[in-house]
Amino acid sequence: MKHKSEIILGIDPGTQLMGYGIIHIENNKASLIEMGVLKLAKYHDTNQRLRIIYNKVSELHRVFHPTQFAIEAPFFGKNVQSMLKLGRAQGVAIASAMQHGLSAYEYSPKKVKQSITGNGNASKEQVLKMLQEILKIDERPEYLDATDAVAVALCHHYQNSKIGTSDTSKTWEAFLKNNAHRIKND
Amino acid sequence: MKHKSEIILGIDPGTQLMGYGIIHIENNKASLIEMGVLKLAKYHDTNQRLRIIYNKVSELHRVFHPTQFAIEAPFFGKNVQSMLKLGRAQGVAIASAMQHGLSAYEYSPKKVKQSITGNGNASKEQVLKMLQEILKIDERPEYLDATDAVAVALCHHYQNSKIGTSDTSKTWEAFLKNNAHRIKND
Repeated sequence: MKHKSEIILGIDPGTQLMGYGIIHIENNKASLIEMGVLKLAKYHDTNQRLRIIYNKVSELHRVFHPTQFAIEAPFFGKNVQSMLKLGRAQGVAIASAMQHGLSAYEYSPKKVKQSITGNGNASKEQVLKMLQEILKIDERPEYLDATDAVAVALCHHYQNSKIGTSDTSKTWEAFLKNNAHRIKND
Repeated sequence: MKHKSEIILGIDPGTQLMGYGIIHIENNKASLIEMGVLKLAKYHDTNQRLRIIYNKVSELHRVFHPTQFAIEAPFFGKNVQSMLKLGRAQGVAIASAMQHGLSAYEYSPKKVKQSITGNGNASKEQVLKMLQEILKIDERPEYLDATDAVAVALCHHYQNSKIGTSDTSKTWEAFLKNNAHRIKND
């Protein structure tokens, strides 16, 4: 029986900070591999910021070999200037994923919150608590942008399972294994 | 004596069409190598559009080995949604340039027009006429997005020369060569 194993890279790109999170899915269970933030505020040159984002995402690909790539993508609420900058930041991150053969899946902040907590209007704190629970994270990260990135990776896992790409939820053997407690052995 | 030779790739990224133009600078004279447009309207999937832009720009790098990369970058006048899309299109094109070791130089449409025609409010037709004159282009391209991309490449050449990276305009030998008609031989 084949258990689907995935490494999901989640990115929450911003112009001041870029959050990243890498989770491992094995036998439909998620665990945290790494999370962090890339600080961009100190770089004043746009080109340099984009290069740093591109280099960081490329490094994450080389080090962790993610098999899936998900990105948090807000769609409104900012002015045109900041949306252009955000779009570029997303664009270089997406290009790095493409270069490594992956497609980019994008989720709105609301969708991510909905998927993790069941409530699309959940606070960042509520999302953090659920992530700590699900992924057994003890520490509190310095920046919530890191957990936002982990959240989008986990959201992608949930969506991915739902749309049927997770082998473990589709085979009868997997069903038996995942529901062993429901099988009477007497 | 060293003559600086450059191949400049100019990109005018849009969400419906992406224009590209490649010019060769030799001995401070510009000539056209290639221009064209990539049609994106038929692809409805955002991811697919970005992949096509990324692949096309990467192909242009592989085929023509540009030594400079310039991009037309409008800064306002659209809604946040379209600016985000435009930013992404720019981002993947910029990432491809970075992957090939180049920095992205960006110019506003006004700056490009100013640089080519001397008038920041020139029409697309006026820009086309100047390009046809300077680059000895006979044909009229089907889409003006192609000539816009050539214009941004040429604009970059002019800016580049101005800030002193063009060897030919700075040495006495170059001056003599470029001004041979002013030298009395009798």
